[in-house]
Amino acid sequence: MAKDKKQNRPKAITPKGFRDYFGSEVTERNQMLQKIVEIYESYGFEALESSAVETLEALGKFLPDVDQPNEGVFAWQEDDQDWLALRYDLTAPLARVYAQYRNDLPVPYRRYSMGPVWRNEKPGPGRFKQFYQCDADTVGSASIAADSEICMLLSDTLQNVGISEGDYIIKANNRKVLNGVLESMNIQETPKRDAILRTVDKFDKVGENGIRQLLGKGRLDASGAYIDGVGLSDNEADIVVAFLTSKGSDIETTLNNLKNLIGSSEIGLEGINELETMAELFVAGGYGSSKISIDPSVVRGLGYYTGPVFEAELTFEIFDEKGRKRQFGSVSGGGRYDDLVKRFTGQAVPATGVSIGVDRLLAALKEKGRIQASGLGPVVVTVMDRDRISDYQKIVAELRNSGIRSEVYLGNPKNFGNQLKYADNRGSPAAVIEGTEERESGTIQIKDLILGKKLSEAATLEEWKDRPSQFTVPRDELVKKIREILSAYK
Amino acid sequence: MAKDKKQNRPKAITPKGFRDYFGSEVTERNQMLQKIVEIYESYGFEALESSAVETLEALGKFLPDVDQPNEGVFAWQEDDQDWLALRYDLTAPLARVYAQYRNDLPVPYRRYSMGPVWRNEKPGPGRFKQFYQCDADTVGSASIAADSEICMLLSDTLQNVGISEGDYIIKANNRKVLNGVLESMNIQETPKRDAILRTVDKFDKVGENGIRQLLGKGRLDASGAYIDGVGLSDNEADIVVAFLTSKGSDIETTLNNLKNLIGSSEIGLEGINELETMAELFVAGGYGSSKISIDPSVVRGLGYYTGPVFEAELTFEIFDEKGRKRQFGSVSGGGRYDDLVKRFTGQAVPATGVSIGVDRLLAALKEKGRIQASGLGPVVVTVMDRDRISDYQKIVAELRNSGIRSEVYLGNPKNFGNQLKYADNRGSPAAVIEGTEERESGTIQIKDLILGKKLSEAATLEEWKDRPSQFTVPRDELVKKIREILSAYK
Repeated sequence: MAKDKKQNRPKAITPKGFRDYFGSEVTERNQMLQKIVEIYESYGFEALESSAVETLEALGKFLPDVDQPNEGVFAWQEDDQDWLALRYDLTAPLARVYAQYRNDLPVPYRRYSMGPVWRNEKPGPGRFKQFYQCDADTVGSASIAADSEICMLLSDTLQNVGISEGDYIIKANNRKVLNGVLESMNIQETPKRDAILRTVDKFDKVGENGIRQLLGKGRLDASGAYIDGVGLSDNEADIVVAFLTSKGSDIETTLNNLKNLIGSSEIGLEGINELETMAELFVAGGYGSSKISIDPSVVRGLGYYTGPVFEAELTFEIFDEKGRKRQFGSVSGGGRYDDLVKRFTGQAVPATGVSIGVDRLLAALKEKGRIQASGLGPVVVTVMDRDRISDYQKIVAELRNSGIRSEVYLGNPKNFGNQLKYADNRGSPAAVIEGTEERESGTIQIKDLILGKKLSEAATLEEWKDRPSQFTVPRDELVKKIREILSAYK
Repeated sequence: MAKDKKQNRPKAITPKGFRDYFGSEVTERNQMLQKIVEIYESYGFEALESSAVETLEALGKFLPDVDQPNEGVFAWQEDDQDWLALRYDLTAPLARVYAQYRNDLPVPYRRYSMGPVWRNEKPGPGRFKQFYQCDADTVGSASIAADSEICMLLSDTLQNVGISEGDYIIKANNRKVLNGVLESMNIQETPKRDAILRTVDKFDKVGENGIRQLLGKGRLDASGAYIDGVGLSDNEADIVVAFLTSKGSDIETTLNNLKNLIGSSEIGLEGINELETMAELFVAGGYGSSKISIDPSVVRGLGYYTGPVFEAELTFEIFDEKGRKRQFGSVSGGGRYDDLVKRFTGQAVPATGVSIGVDRLLAALKEKGRIQASGLGPVVVTVMDRDRISDYQKIVAELRNSGIRSEVYLGNPKNFGNQLKYADNRGSPAAVIEGTEERESGTIQIKDLILGKKLSEAATLEEWKDRPSQFTVPRDELVKKIREILSAYK
């Protein structure tokens, strides 16, 4: 019987590929999002929070590397036959919102959104089925100044959250140039172009030779599996690789290199002119090539980009899971997508925007030590006499009213050691103790827990030796003393 | 052909029962959540963000007024046969998290969570299938001080977001007392007790007579439909109504009234003693009966509460959709639930907590005028000469670096009227205009758009008559002048 009962119990598990976030993991992310939004707002973008649930048909199928409809999303059918799904990014919902409210929204519509998105894909190290994005987009502007602005916004945002100049680079490119290159090679079919796109997007992972093989007959990957190639001739593959590696020492060189690859393609020339304009705007805005650079090696895997594309890479080195040094890599990307709203309305609406991978950027800030969550828990007022809980609550109220985070111990007070263990576990800076003796003499005891920990870790440490970690003070000096302890650890 | 194409287009609609939030709707809510979290943090609670998706079995079935499993939630089956679902509140995930991580979490575990929850229920006016909750719970403390603290926390929170003393009341009751009353009537069966619970939870809607009918044979509701009753005898229904209306002019009277209803029930007496302790703690903490009151009319509909229950009601009057005056009503509720973790582990874990209905509280703050979203858009730098976009971007950068939210107009600059219309639409405080003439003379034009609007609304308004709404200033006074305009509207 008892056994049956146990088997019927639900399992207490986070669903596969999902995770929970505790304490500072939540507050640190919120602080970073706040810093991002600060810049987005200052640029004039306004907030939009669309529902997490969309109709499946509104979402469409724009995930890269996914061939079947519905694949990669969480979707279900309602009783009334409608298919609903969780959003997989913040761009598809924006296109839907813009199409739906276009008569009421200002044009251009400049909005930012932040929140979780969901992907029903195989999770990997650091990759989960639910993660945060934080996007800024300008819908309804065909101006290349809008794309340039997004790149500058991205630069300012990275610096505002704590990534220094020199530790990041924003690389900008233009899809029209690649289209021009493919046009000059007479490669016109969309599926083939998409396959080339998805392949060259792996440039930073597999390198020049790897890309050459993948564009041609294919290659053995690290696991020993054979990856089919796109089927270009060696000559064609060379041209695409020449495009990817056309970045020169200055912008003129880069643009000249590109001109040599597009032949007489008009669309290619248009792309080169747009890149030139963007480069001029960056220089005029004071965003030198140490912040934003024109770099044709960035193409972005998504099929829906139609013009400028860009990516923010963090250039400092970290050690990967195998202990090898590597650059931190991409934390953000975006570009111009002029056809997403057209899906709904039939009319092309120019749009451009950027998405920040919030979790990756947060990981980067931690890596650089740029996030200092105090990690400090509340002051814990211990319970020496369980009948005097209201007195302890008054002490807590006094601390709290002085702006000091604090709580009374609410577990079973019988074992005093457990109370101090709890305070330690919470990362409390101090425990407050008031027994009968203290109360009668108008005093109170304070235990400096951080000092206590330091003393126990290095008992001989000179600087601490004259400070006792537990001491008695007059009752009316409680707030003052706790403040002193807190200020010593800030 | 063209028609077919059109029919294949996806519809740009928010799914039925969902909605999108724009601009200040998002930022105002975030500001309020920030104020709530400020208090939660100061009380020593720490953040938890569990995944929005749970296994269906972990969620269980705790929604009120729902009889079938899965009803009321959004759920779907994955390819690997697992059923997943969107969380419908923040309490069920907390129970799962506590059971899952109980060996690593501090005890008591005091956590707060905020975020959207989803209910697959019929939406109504102001009720959507996705809405925000903001909860604080203490898991692992059996102390009645934990419940009392939650009530005081709720009081401080309401005042911190801008609800004044006198505009709210927190009503506290105890399920054990009602159980004692039912025990003294020999009503023991859980289904019958749950039916009574759900019925008396409607007390504030249907009144004393309505409850008497619903507890007995039933009644015709406003729509003319007959609602079956619980089937109590008249005498039994009288006792339950006496319980609901047992609040006296002071706490002693209330407790005596309750004592007369529980007969010799031990559980009932336990409940009364707990209410007495809570009342003492409230008084000791300085939370008088104008803030927190012991009121047996509050029972809460959820079956899982086992001890203290509480509800925060806003007592100021508003006009409902039919123009009738009524009290704003409940914005928050909670209580003790000692069995939710037991579902997973087999061992009872005492827990108590509160949930704030974020959207309702936000609506209340708007009603009271306690939210002042500036509603002010960015300063718009207009484009007189499209070849000089980088100059305009420099102006914007100058404003932004002075902390002024601003943007360059990125739509088609051809029609200048559209640029000013856009600025109006965004709620911009000012437009900045720099044509050839201004540039050559080292000046710049500023259009005070809010003043302009006031002038056009009331052209004779004395206080405005000496202030021109458009004026030219030396170029280097731009920031100073814009600051003057902004400070006049803050």
